[in-house]
Amino acid sequence: MSIITALNWRYAAKRMNGTKVPKAKMDVIMEAMSLAPSSFGLQPYSILIIENEALLRRIKPIANMQPQITEASSLIVFATWDKITQERINAYITQIAKERNISEDSLLSLRNPIEAQLNNSDEDNFIWNSKQVYIALGFGLVAAAEEGVDSTPMEGFNKEQLDELLFLKDKGLRSTVLMALGYRDTPNDYLVNLKKIRRVNDKLFAIYQ
Amino acid sequence: MSIITALNWRYAAKRMNGTKVPKAKMDVIMEAMSLAPSSFGLQPYSILIIENEALLRRIKPIANMQPQITEASSLIVFATWDKITQERINAYITQIAKERNISEDSLLSLRNPIEAQLNNSDEDNFIWNSKQVYIALGFGLVAAAEEGVDSTPMEGFNKEQLDELLFLKDKGLRSTVLMALGYRDTPNDYLVNLKKIRRVNDKLFAIYQ
Repeated sequence: MSIITALNWRYAAKRMNGTKVPKAKMDVIMEAMSLAPSSFGLQPYSILIIENEALLRRIKPIANMQPQITEASSLIVFATWDKITQERINAYITQIAKERNISEDSLLSLRNPIEAQLNNSDEDNFIWNSKQVYIALGFGLVAAAEEGVDSTPMEGFNKEQLDELLFLKDKGLRSTVLMALGYRDTPNDYLVNLKKIRRVNDKLFAIYQ
Repeated sequence: MSIITALNWRYAAKRMNGTKVPKAKMDVIMEAMSLAPSSFGLQPYSILIIENEALLRRIKPIANMQPQITEASSLIVFATWDKITQERINAYITQIAKERNISEDSLLSLRNPIEAQLNNSDEDNFIWNSKQVYIALGFGLVAAAEEGVDSTPMEGFNKEQLDELLFLKDKGLRSTVLMALGYRDTPNDYLVNLKKIRRVNDKLFAIYQ
């Protein structure tokens, strides 16, 4: 499926039918998310794949009882680093040096601007980290569409309650956005046949030639 | 090209060779960005496509003299709505009613939660809008890769100066992130042959089954 065909096919499914997404398709979606770029390459987030039914039933009331939570095949929780820390920077620099077989000293021109972020408040760095999450979300949404898998991005949930349920605070993470993956329940989803609305090109784009 | 092949091929080109991206490929990348979802479907941003050479030369010093600015075929400026306004909400609701041929009254269940955002501070809504921008950035990056076009996301620029140069404040916009589109300058880009670094799966992902 071409990317444009896939993206026109996709929509934010409000109802899903419970069908499981095959592992091969999940692998593609996960690898695409893993390949998303991020500022300095830090990937300042964890991506939780929730398939446990008991856990999903507990998440549903935290997410406004949205039916996709339990009708999805997987619920993806994008959980952002709550802050940038020296330890997280060190782990990243060590990994690069090891994988590229170079010295850590040769990476100072990368390390220094990352460490400069430590001068920002934790809250500012959390917001910055959160934005990177949305690139990975974008990659996941496109990959799902090209695999013929429905996806619903969701911001309507109680973040503090989800953090508590998943013990995210102890891990230095804060839940940021959700993505349900599964298959549309066509007979029961009011949205499936509604015309997709997008801003017209001459309002969305401005071209300076 | 499969999405995984394309995403492994892509990297953040630090040098580009000035070759122009054909219009047909630009059309695909732009349409993909247009099809990116956003919270409530608001698409709270404009996407500026800068190809004017004189303008690009003026942007370069604002962006730390990064060579891609003038070596790219197009520089994309993602410019976020500075705030949510009643006028912007009204325009959106009117558009949906018209395109779906329904009454605006029937859209109250969509209008009300959007209008509830007006209770947040402008700065909070700006941050929320900014995150949506990164989904469109993600869609643009994937589409470019699948079209064999190089792309470099860039946050390293002076936002206030770019806003001033492009008169964005008057338009209720704030520059947020850039994406250079073009073709890698393989002989001159130190990054092109370096191993791509990504967090290993068991650190990036957590699976709850």
